[in-house]
Amino acid sequence: MKALEEKILKEGIVKEGNVLKVDSFLNHQIDVSFLEKMGEEFKELFKDKKITKILTIEASGIGVAVMASRHFGYVPVVFAKKAKTSNISDELYHTRIDSYTHQKTNDVVVSKQYLNQDDHVLIIDDFLANGCAIFGLIDLVQQAGGVVEGVGIVIEKGYQEGGHKIREAGYHLESLAIIESMNDQTSEITFRK
Amino acid sequence: MKALEEKILKEGIVKEGNVLKVDSFLNHQIDVSFLEKMGEEFKELFKDKKITKILTIEASGIGVAVMASRHFGYVPVVFAKKAKTSNISDELYHTRIDSYTHQKTNDVVVSKQYLNQDDHVLIIDDFLANGCAIFGLIDLVQQAGGVVEGVGIVIEKGYQEGGHKIREAGYHLESLAIIESMNDQTSEITFRK
Repeated sequence: MKALEEKILKEGIVKEGNVLKVDSFLNHQIDVSFLEKMGEEFKELFKDKKITKILTIEASGIGVAVMASRHFGYVPVVFAKKAKTSNISDELYHTRIDSYTHQKTNDVVVSKQYLNQDDHVLIIDDFLANGCAIFGLIDLVQQAGGVVEGVGIVIEKGYQEGGHKIREAGYHLESLAIIESMNDQTSEITFRK
Repeated sequence: MKALEEKILKEGIVKEGNVLKVDSFLNHQIDVSFLEKMGEEFKELFKDKKITKILTIEASGIGVAVMASRHFGYVPVVFAKKAKTSNISDELYHTRIDSYTHQKTNDVVVSKQYLNQDDHVLIIDDFLANGCAIFGLIDLVQQAGGVVEGVGIVIEKGYQEGGHKIREAGYHLESLAIIESMNDQTSEITFRK
């Protein structure tokens, strides 16, 4: 998505330790009209799929998922929650996700009420790097017996292994922008063609 | 908002310890078309105000705020973040918010880049009980020198003191539903007329 690449070049900040900050429109302040365009783009990219539910994870994925839902006929959005305790009840699907950014492992849950075997799920998230979050969400859908129809990502770090692993595993993954390289010394960012 | 009261009666679950769970449409699964109606209603309730920014707090407020933004001319949404460390930099406005639900105090921050003295802010959140979260968000706007034009809440627990204190302090507070009482034994919920 050309407009997203331009926005990243203009507003993104490359920080030490492989961090791209896009706080001006996605991760802290949200540019809602831009989210609208991203929602339209996801619909275009997954137009052949019958989606009954969008699954994301709190917190930054929620805005993107909600706006995308409008373009998929207002299907329900479910956001997986980071469990506050490791005391997981029988009423929940549970998976564990390693967080690269915060160097910890989160227990992530979805209530069994909101994900089931009839669901055809589009998984949406803001970033894809090593793929841990997405494989965790895929795991939750599979526990529920649902079908993962696709994975939609705003920004993929193409030089990390997540995208390759998800495509290799046979999932239909679409990223609105794929970063080929970035340099925190020069602030240079290049995108995959 | 009559439709919201009906939805709470139909789908809300009263739990021990003054907890109302609305996970089916707001706090876990999100009914996006219903969020759309709530966004329209907030616009109607604050139609005389010139709003330049919507401020909320992660995570459950984000969906409501993003959908409301559409009805206020796509103004930017900023979500305050729960700080992961108590190491707060100079680039952040910082406040502390006691969480009733999780019985802890959170350090909550907003980057100084995304809130400033030109901002006319509508604060939006999903629940209002003792008012701690809202007074924290008001504090952040005031630190930035901005103006709090209003506070929009989805569900106010009218029998707790938050709503009274915010109105008493002179803020324009609108809650889409105000619960007068609820009973976890009988599951009965009554609303303020």
